[in-house]
Amino acid sequence: MKKKKKVNAAILIIGNEILSGRTQDKNIVFLCNWLNLNCGITVAEVRIIPDVEKVIIKNIRKLSKEFHYVFTTGGIGPTHDDITAKSIAKAFRVKYNFHKEAYKILENYYGKNNFNDGRKKMAKMPANAKLIYNPSSAAPGFITKNVLSLPGVPSILNSMIDNCKKYLIRGSKVQSKTLNLFTVESNISKSLGDIQKKYKKFVEIGSYPFFRLGKIGVSIVSRSTSKNKLIQVHKELLKLIKFKKIKILKT
Amino acid sequence: MKKKKKVNAAILIIGNEILSGRTQDKNIVFLCNWLNLNCGITVAEVRIIPDVEKVIIKNIRKLSKEFHYVFTTGGIGPTHDDITAKSIAKAFRVKYNFHKEAYKILENYYGKNNFNDGRKKMAKMPANAKLIYNPSSAAPGFITKNVLSLPGVPSILNSMIDNCKKYLIRGSKVQSKTLNLFTVESNISKSLGDIQKKYKKFVEIGSYPFFRLGKIGVSIVSRSTSKNKLIQVHKELLKLIKFKKIKILKT
Repeated sequence: MKKKKKVNAAILIIGNEILSGRTQDKNIVFLCNWLNLNCGITVAEVRIIPDVEKVIIKNIRKLSKEFHYVFTTGGIGPTHDDITAKSIAKAFRVKYNFHKEAYKILENYYGKNNFNDGRKKMAKMPANAKLIYNPSSAAPGFITKNVLSLPGVPSILNSMIDNCKKYLIRGSKVQSKTLNLFTVESNISKSLGDIQKKYKKFVEIGSYPFFRLGKIGVSIVSRSTSKNKLIQVHKELLKLIKFKKIKILKT
Repeated sequence: MKKKKKVNAAILIIGNEILSGRTQDKNIVFLCNWLNLNCGITVAEVRIIPDVEKVIIKNIRKLSKEFHYVFTTGGIGPTHDDITAKSIAKAFRVKYNFHKEAYKILENYYGKNNFNDGRKKMAKMPANAKLIYNPSSAAPGFITKNVLSLPGVPSILNSMIDNCKKYLIRGSKVQSKTLNLFTVESNISKSLGDIQKKYKKFVEIGSYPFFRLGKIGVSIVSRSTSKNKLIQVHKELLKLIKFKKIKILKT
């Protein structure tokens, strides 16, 4: 597929179980890593919303306009609270019908005699959706325009993710370098700000406190699509660390 | 404080480290549980956004209009990428200045001689912000209109959360009942949908697949502010389970 420099995506997590606090989401960190590392796609925004049709419709319309891709998770199973496919069809004003190939896949998987209405529901999709095959539990995900819909169960989502690749234009990969320092943020904040200012067009520097081995530390993470600039920033950071006599944690 | 029936909130996670996939967020599940269980406040939406001023401003304006409360996490430390306070001041078009009490707290904590510019920065807040005290690392959070700003480090956030309570109007508590069943969703989806339809004004029924002890199961979670309606739904579910001869997993 064609290479494009900057490609971004939004993630839309659909599910009351996350908002109620019942479930710790695991899909965000997985998708962010996968998109960054495998596709050079930057995740620009994540939203978590309830299983409410009008809320899903509003967010699909908004995010699909604003970003190159939208990944949805959740709401594509057989029960009454699974309304993602229907809501996406409404968002794009297309029909919501049985997808012939998905119907066949599910009918084969369950067998004709056990292919009940709940299972058939998983073959209903927005018109002209293309399938994202599911090697673990058969029910396919689907892509509607620039919206890729995946299930909410992390193990199933993970098993399907590589089947999304063929639909995606890749961006330039962001590389990163991390320095874990035994110091406090406020000891280096000024110099760090100066370095960030100098390289602001090319490198993004983040500062994150940690607690390890009973000590306080700071992780300095530099991220860039340019390896050269990343090395330059790294050298400046090492100079600063030497000057301030800060110990580096080697992991 | 006055009791109000339905109170909602949005959570705004500010931080490139979550979007890059470097960090697994732990604040969402903690805040959702705390708000639901301790305050009767429903989390209606979560957004994760980057450390970019104009994005923060846009989201603060939007969410603070749409929901009773907005909780932000992250971006209130001493480094260049900590821009939450300044962005909130801009969002509400108020000044961004030293908060006298916050300044004193931090000066006492670090000592006059060690109170450098990075540390002083943590005392800068939107005008008229009220403090959310921080028992673990001194630097206070703050509330600006209906927006409560907390740090991103989970252990520090957790230690401060009870100091938010005095600023919040409480809602009616949502109670829940869970049944863990050894069955598949599509075996009960039709009946479950019928029960949900019957009680749709009062009870929200969710269905979530699980894998345990090598077996596939489904958790049925009913949630309601009415205990009576919750018990009625529970009875109907038990009837359905008996009829379908489904085994319940007792945990």
